[in-house]
Amino acid sequence: MDIYSGHINKLIEQLSRLPGVGAKSAQRLAFHIINMPQEEVDGLTNAITSAKANVRYCKECFTLTDEEICPICANKARDHSTIMVVEHTRDMAAYEKTGKYNGVYHVLHGAISPMLGIGPADIKIKELIKRLEGDVNEVIIATNSSLEGETTAMYLSRLIKPTGITVTRIASGVPVGGDLEYIDEVTLLRALEGRTQL
Amino acid sequence: MDIYSGHINKLIEQLSRLPGVGAKSAQRLAFHIINMPQEEVDGLTNAITSAKANVRYCKECFTLTDEEICPICANKARDHSTIMVVEHTRDMAAYEKTGKYNGVYHVLHGAISPMLGIGPADIKIKELIKRLEGDVNEVIIATNSSLEGETTAMYLSRLIKPTGITVTRIASGVPVGGDLEYIDEVTLLRALEGRTQL
Repeated sequence: MDIYSGHINKLIEQLSRLPGVGAKSAQRLAFHIINMPQEEVDGLTNAITSAKANVRYCKECFTLTDEEICPICANKARDHSTIMVVEHTRDMAAYEKTGKYNGVYHVLHGAISPMLGIGPADIKIKELIKRLEGDVNEVIIATNSSLEGETTAMYLSRLIKPTGITVTRIASGVPVGGDLEYIDEVTLLRALEGRTQL
Repeated sequence: MDIYSGHINKLIEQLSRLPGVGAKSAQRLAFHIINMPQEEVDGLTNAITSAKANVRYCKECFTLTDEEICPICANKARDHSTIMVVEHTRDMAAYEKTGKYNGVYHVLHGAISPMLGIGPADIKIKELIKRLEGDVNEVIIATNSSLEGETTAMYLSRLIKPTGITVTRIASGVPVGGDLEYIDEVTLLRALEGRTQL
């Protein structure tokens, strides 16, 4: 027997398809939504519908944006000869929050993962190579420090180096404020390998 | 500067209002939703809209349901003289999953909490008392084993006992499979107090 009514079950089922939303939290969210005032429910569904309808890829860097060209690519004050390559729009947002990077970005929308069957053609690598035909001095590879991110970094580096453009990789090591005792061995070794002279 | 475009920000903001959805997971959910196929996005928004439009309180027990009277209250085979009082519809669902309870329910939609300013008039207590005018033998209080749940149980017990109806409280103790070592002292004391002869 279904414990909840049809409409509740359907909502729970839809919510539990979202990433990171398990059966219990889908249930909790569903009841919360049903108890929300009508205008808040409308606010939520309208936000979903209009984000889906209006958000697209920037024609330059492939970040998600409301415009043809995102505000960063459209900004003439930024250094368009330095491209930071990231996996996702949220990674770009993380670097933007530092406020210290003045170059532009390129969003791959994923990383190479033989395990998941994601090859170079499945992410925005072709589009990156096309951008390098312009006036580019440096490509900073800021993919994640995971197996997939490292694989992608390696692949891009081999692909771009022959063009003579400088290819760099963001540093990997102990996070600031990190306690050595709680950091995994691979990170500790990376930090050691990447040591700099004081 | 806003890091994301207007539509993305609006969606993140709406999602982060949901319970248990923090800033990071709202961001993750928003990008997931934007990347979902159109028909899945429609499925999600339709489920929200129609659950909100069609789900209401059962006129008898105040659970959330699609009908005037929920399937449990409408079921003549169930024992309508035994009412289990729970805080939320999800608590009722938890007991229904056991498949061993044949009475009916009453959903309070909350618990008395002086801290949060929730008094007896803010939850469905008046409605419960009205139901007791019918043919009721036992009221089983199954509010949570929290401060608010216990307060509500105490309040209801004092209110109902003078009517001569039996009032019981579900047992509190060590959960099945629970390891004594990891169980808090209050629960251990409760389990001791509630010991039964073998």
